[in-house]
Amino acid sequence: MTAPSPLFGKIALIGAGLIGSSIAHASRRAGLAEHIAAYIPRDTTRARAEKSGFADSLHSELAAAVSDANLVILATPLGTLADLAQRAAPHLNPGVILTDVGSVKASVIRDVKPHVPPGVHFIPGHPVAGTEQSGPEAGFAELFDGRWCILTPLSGTDPQALEKLKQFWRGCGSNVEIMDAEHHDLVLAITSHVPHLIAYNIVGTAADLETVRQGEVIKYSASGFRDFTRIAASDPTMWRDIFLNNRDAVLEMLGRFNEDLAALQRAVRWGDGDALFRLFTRTRAIRRSVVEAGQDTPKPNFGRLSPTPRRRS
Amino acid sequence: MTAPSPLFGKIALIGAGLIGSSIAHASRRAGLAEHIAAYIPRDTTRARAEKSGFADSLHSELAAAVSDANLVILATPLGTLADLAQRAAPHLNPGVILTDVGSVKASVIRDVKPHVPPGVHFIPGHPVAGTEQSGPEAGFAELFDGRWCILTPLSGTDPQALEKLKQFWRGCGSNVEIMDAEHHDLVLAITSHVPHLIAYNIVGTAADLETVRQGEVIKYSASGFRDFTRIAASDPTMWRDIFLNNRDAVLEMLGRFNEDLAALQRAVRWGDGDALFRLFTRTRAIRRSVVEAGQDTPKPNFGRLSPTPRRRS
Repeated sequence: MTAPSPLFGKIALIGAGLIGSSIAHASRRAGLAEHIAAYIPRDTTRARAEKSGFADSLHSELAAAVSDANLVILATPLGTLADLAQRAAPHLNPGVILTDVGSVKASVIRDVKPHVPPGVHFIPGHPVAGTEQSGPEAGFAELFDGRWCILTPLSGTDPQALEKLKQFWRGCGSNVEIMDAEHHDLVLAITSHVPHLIAYNIVGTAADLETVRQGEVIKYSASGFRDFTRIAASDPTMWRDIFLNNRDAVLEMLGRFNEDLAALQRAVRWGDGDALFRLFTRTRAIRRSVVEAGQDTPKPNFGRLSPTPRRRS
Repeated sequence: MTAPSPLFGKIALIGAGLIGSSIAHASRRAGLAEHIAAYIPRDTTRARAEKSGFADSLHSELAAAVSDANLVILATPLGTLADLAQRAAPHLNPGVILTDVGSVKASVIRDVKPHVPPGVHFIPGHPVAGTEQSGPEAGFAELFDGRWCILTPLSGTDPQALEKLKQFWRGCGSNVEIMDAEHHDLVLAITSHVPHLIAYNIVGTAADLETVRQGEVIKYSASGFRDFTRIAASDPTMWRDIFLNNRDAVLEMLGRFNEDLAALQRAVRWGDGDALFRLFTRTRAIRRSVVEAGQDTPKPNFGRLSPTPRRRS
């Protein structure tokens, strides 16, 4: 009995931060590639990736990383994709699948598609998973397990290439969903981008108060605030690029958030307890659905344990 | 060698939800009381508390629960405290310490103080700890470990009574801080009340969209939204009462949040990447401080594990 041959001969990762390195770990776990190459131009970052050891070869030159690859995955911040696609294009053979992991899809199509050579299968993708950490050490094989990867293929996409990319993501532990780029960007605006924006915002607000000291905000953060600080610790470059590239959908969803918040503010001001109670009861049901869908732990406080008591008073 | 005698002979818990039952568990763990009594008027809830077995006696009558108690702890939603204090007052002996665990302190003083009999030591308190769960089964002994309990004693409070209550909370695993009620209410407005309000709000906004289905919001919630659903699953009655009783501080902090969000919205609209990047970098440092202060886990994603992969596509 021989082992089944891997899905791809060579996978080239362009960038190897949290998502790129997790893809490498997950690909290895499932034996999805014979060779995993990673393009990491910065010497210090490449040295860190070397230590983590998740790739078979690390490259300071883009051409060397992508040449002879069967699957090329763009895994850098959105603002870098146009340039990288243009530079990679001359080195892509016909038949190669070119994909990405960006959190916005219309902008990726705008930036990458013009550079895709004939015969290369460009299929935009977005694994909906992550942590607040970044860098090549942050990746782990289980990141995509039970999460969803959304692919937003363009019309005329080769069905076999699409099927192969689906198999790849399933091999990494994901479920796969297909939708169009515009809808993806709207869905992610409300499930991810606006939540991040308001988390960044409230952490900024709390840091700037003159009536409450920052030390107090930190000491008493277990009352709710600490959850927002986790999200607000996400990678600044990545998130800047998301907001610059999904402006319309973010503003649309933020407009709705603001409308609803104005109504809630009014309920607080006028002491409308019934309105508050009604909302707080509805939202509880949504939590149950998230847990039932396997998208979060049922454990209280996300299963966080209290730290060892520290005596400071 | 004999065991040291407990700090209190009898503790009476008025209400035994998440906080009340956790106090009982923590008191037992440290041997802080000879007897723990709990007043739970509703038959079904009392039966549930009976099963959990955290109290030595359960009472449907307030007088029986509090008579001969040395420490009486009000642990019900804020809206019920005036009535309970009034009804308990005739049964409190001089020398008793009367405290509470409410998330707003000025309103507790307004509601409870007028009913406190001479010789009873009324010391408002707030253990800054919790989970999104509620009810008598939700409590556990470690809830207060390493967290802060804020006491807001009135002027003229007996120093020995205050010291004894501090010892009690330290015995439960807490650090203890003293501040005045108005400042407490401002600090909690920004660290807890406004974060809860905006979490409730965005979960409501997401549920009401017509362009994105609720099922999609739930499927892709691991991208940020799920964290907000945990907070928005907190007890509706408790949180209604918090907003009704800390209106001014909540509106003040919400006003600042809204100002900052308007500026952030403008940065998104005009593509001001530098402004976004600056904020996102500052907020990252706050997260580090929260973790360094022992108020949250350093583990990515709060240490949540991915669930077992479920195949649904």
